[in-house]
Amino acid sequence: MPTDIEIAQAATLRKILPLAAERLGIPEDALVPYGHYKAKISLPHLQQLAERPQQGHLVLVTAISPTPPGEGKTTTTVGLGDGLSHIGKKAMICLREPSLGPCFGMKGGAAGGGYAQVVPMEDINLHFTGDFHAIALANNLLAALLDNHIHHGNALGLDVRRISWRRVVDMNDRALRQITVALGGPGNGYPREDGFDIVVASEVMAILCLADSLADLKQRLGNIVVGYTADKRAITARDLKADGAMAALLKDAMSPNLVQTLEGTPAFVHGGPFANIAHGCNSLMATRAALKLADYVVTEAGFGADLGAEKFIDIKCRKGGLKPACAVIVATVRALKHHGGGAAQPALQALQSGLANLRRHIENVQEHYGLPAIVSINRFDSDSAEEIALIEACCTDLGVRCVLASHWAEGGAGAAALAEAVVQQCENAPGTPRFLYDDAEPLEAKISAVARKIYRADSVAFEPRAAQQLKDLNAQGWGHLPVCIAKTQYSFSSDASLLGAPIGHVLRVRELRLNAGAGFVTAICGDIMTMPGLPKVPAAERIGLDDQGRIHGLF
Amino acid sequence: MPTDIEIAQAATLRKILPLAAERLGIPEDALVPYGHYKAKISLPHLQQLAERPQQGHLVLVTAISPTPPGEGKTTTTVGLGDGLSHIGKKAMICLREPSLGPCFGMKGGAAGGGYAQVVPMEDINLHFTGDFHAIALANNLLAALLDNHIHHGNALGLDVRRISWRRVVDMNDRALRQITVALGGPGNGYPREDGFDIVVASEVMAILCLADSLADLKQRLGNIVVGYTADKRAITARDLKADGAMAALLKDAMSPNLVQTLEGTPAFVHGGPFANIAHGCNSLMATRAALKLADYVVTEAGFGADLGAEKFIDIKCRKGGLKPACAVIVATVRALKHHGGGAAQPALQALQSGLANLRRHIENVQEHYGLPAIVSINRFDSDSAEEIALIEACCTDLGVRCVLASHWAEGGAGAAALAEAVVQQCENAPGTPRFLYDDAEPLEAKISAVARKIYRADSVAFEPRAAQQLKDLNAQGWGHLPVCIAKTQYSFSSDASLLGAPIGHVLRVRELRLNAGAGFVTAICGDIMTMPGLPKVPAAERIGLDDQGRIHGLF
Repeated sequence: MPTDIEIAQAATLRKILPLAAERLGIPEDALVPYGHYKAKISLPHLQQLAERPQQGHLVLVTAISPTPPGEGKTTTTVGLGDGLSHIGKKAMICLREPSLGPCFGMKGGAAGGGYAQVVPMEDINLHFTGDFHAIALANNLLAALLDNHIHHGNALGLDVRRISWRRVVDMNDRALRQITVALGGPGNGYPREDGFDIVVASEVMAILCLADSLADLKQRLGNIVVGYTADKRAITARDLKADGAMAALLKDAMSPNLVQTLEGTPAFVHGGPFANIAHGCNSLMATRAALKLADYVVTEAGFGADLGAEKFIDIKCRKGGLKPACAVIVATVRALKHHGGGAAQPALQALQSGLANLRRHIENVQEHYGLPAIVSINRFDSDSAEEIALIEACCTDLGVRCVLASHWAEGGAGAAALAEAVVQQCENAPGTPRFLYDDAEPLEAKISAVARKIYRADSVAFEPRAAQQLKDLNAQGWGHLPVCIAKTQYSFSSDASLLGAPIGHVLRVRELRLNAGAGFVTAICGDIMTMPGLPKVPAAERIGLDDQGRIHGLF
Repeated sequence: MPTDIEIAQAATLRKILPLAAERLGIPEDALVPYGHYKAKISLPHLQQLAERPQQGHLVLVTAISPTPPGEGKTTTTVGLGDGLSHIGKKAMICLREPSLGPCFGMKGGAAGGGYAQVVPMEDINLHFTGDFHAIALANNLLAALLDNHIHHGNALGLDVRRISWRRVVDMNDRALRQITVALGGPGNGYPREDGFDIVVASEVMAILCLADSLADLKQRLGNIVVGYTADKRAITARDLKADGAMAALLKDAMSPNLVQTLEGTPAFVHGGPFANIAHGCNSLMATRAALKLADYVVTEAGFGADLGAEKFIDIKCRKGGLKPACAVIVATVRALKHHGGGAAQPALQALQSGLANLRRHIENVQEHYGLPAIVSINRFDSDSAEEIALIEACCTDLGVRCVLASHWAEGGAGAAALAEAVVQQCENAPGTPRFLYDDAEPLEAKISAVARKIYRADSVAFEPRAAQQLKDLNAQGWGHLPVCIAKTQYSFSSDASLLGAPIGHVLRVRELRLNAGAGFVTAICGDIMTMPGLPKVPAAERIGLDDQGRIHGLF
């Protein structure tokens, strides 16, 4: 089998403007082309779409707790979209944009795999239409204006010990996690501690994903809290007069990006990934537009259903009034064995134990999120018939539909059965999404609700710094916000080594970060980092460009 | 008179693909559109162009020593291009791309002004086609790989005290000039001193501007020296296996960007500005392509003729074999008065004294660069007839053509006389460019040649650190490279307060930076910074976006 990039480069793509006209009825002048195969949908056209009645069913693709290379959630999202097209449905896909961190680090690209990819994959994985660059600059402009304000007299009285706004770069760069800035004398400002996060962790990313208009974008940018005065009064981006220029930088980035799958299914790829440290969903504007344009909209939320799916429901659906009809839970034999002890156990025994992870995700999705679950086995060549049968039996026991999907090798045809199952579910028995907590509950109750119901933790422990932050946030009146929990994706708990379906653990909250513009409070748990590092042999080392401009080594 | 952005937004632009076909004979499929009004010319088409004979005359636009808002060099470049079109010539313009630093800082945008602008001005001034973002990421990927290599065992033996590679951001952010990174314990790497430069100062920018093919780009990226071992052995980007991924990030950025002036003259806007701290010219690939596509190619080199023009000749023309025919020197009454003592003197007396600055630039351009000079007075409404006459008389004395140009208010028609003068010069008496020094001369002789001939310094003083670096660079065999002098643009000297035509001064060299990939050694002189700061009231504060997506306050 050829590599992902070889498959993608061998494909014959349709030009995006005629494809959009034919498949979605979008007129050419409502699209802004970025090359021949990518386009942004214009904001005036989005406003027109907003007035149409919603026609589409929304389907969420989520997964069991993954292993480091991922279990094929994006691949399944793309495959299901193509599968729906294959069985004659008008379908669209909504994905988040890839980050360059994993591209150059360990995991590789994030545009699907095999014969289930969005293309042009090199463009999508690298700079795409520049959205992340715009987000990074808007974030860093605010940082520069903040330090500049302090340097030029600090009229707002910011306390350099209480700056919460960090800089960002779209790179795995551990050396920037903790730094000191403004060294070297009076000409360089007031020295202070600072740090960089990866772009996807920027509040500006969350704002872009949750804003539903330019007016809303500006409002949210202005509301960002950058730090505090010595008497703990919050200072905002609006106070620094940064919101206008930040909005100008984000104008084009607000428009959803339209591309296609290898089989020509239209796809919006827009907004931020990383459901471990961020809210991890594609933009609300893209999802809403897709629901006006297609009968079936397949979207994904990052990592396992404890992370992306929870935030999809409790943050994105809550803010945006979205009503997903059902959820597809992607599982692999490989990951289930890993959860059951891996190579140390006989294969079927490991798988049998590991199924506890799948069972709990199914239970959470159905009981707590209110969504009917369909399990999709992302088939690998190495999977045995006995192994597949074991997963199917587990699902049968739970009364859950389980489908074997081979879109990776076969494209949409390989996901036709999955598509049929999804259509039946949407038409006959769609779910009614439920939130885990009410807005009115205090922050600690919200964190506790997620920890107890979804993670099955016994309790939540706030480290001293987080406990103080909790007190401050409540005192400042931010208790009404939903919570965005940042924790490892490898376990239900905040400890990456607790595989399977752990119970009796404690969710350790290290830090709380107010995202007043995005409208949530992030709780950073365990040892999760908002700036990843590169592995000993980074993927960057194998990436290259030939003299004719063809990229290789990206996957 | 409306503002620049109001004029630009009121203009009716032609779609770029048909414009390119009609004006330049470029087929549609040789262009990659970025929206409807910007496009990149494809690399295969550039390769085809390379085989055509050169048809165009190359005209350099330079200036007297400017005041902070600039004297209208870009505006004159655009106006002259339109003037040439106006008198029936097939003309093109080659500009460098704007940096976001000045946009949000003090100077504002860099796409011309009044009725002599390249458009769409908001796009060009903000993200444009993402070239600077790609350069920043390629630069910062190398930095991340470097610190990661040290973290994971440092097999190459890099000395953390001898890292020369800095990170970059496209922002004026003084707090990042001098920082410490990798604090916080073993998980975050080995602490060391570091700093950020503005993107235009990145060696990657210079490489992009000087590379003449993808193969050359890769070679140069690999040659970048990032630091040294304890025994002063150079470690390169190739040693870190970073060059392939950096090239992949820069693939699209290597293609010149095509836009248009308000009057429809085609313009390449490609590569890096800031001739004070960088070499400051647009890309060689763009200039070469333009010379195959048009009969007259107008390009600019940043700030006064002591900076941009010198580097244009000694770096860009030397590397690229370009043969400019003549130079236009832009002068304003305002700046000449400033050089003559400003408001403290009677107006005509200040102007009379300030003309010394113009005279020296004319002399340098003609005698040292070998280019016939034409003086273009960028007319302001406030200029009196006596003032204009005084400048004209000065030029007549020197036997130099002087033209009054009013393209800012009148577009190409206002620059028709300038265009006629340029055509006559190119056809009847083109110059023969001369270099200030030979490759074989040692580095100190090259720096001295620029200092003595162009700046009229008595001597060059190397501060202790620079003296040691000079010794090391010579010992390591880098003496054959040309030099790129970084100094203030406000004076011929390295002291911004020495206006007019100072003599008897000393060029103070603070630091030398090897750019082994770009192929020059930068000499940082006086107190020039490679990371600017923001003023007390940054331009960012007045920039905004309305609810329909229209940007305001950018100029």
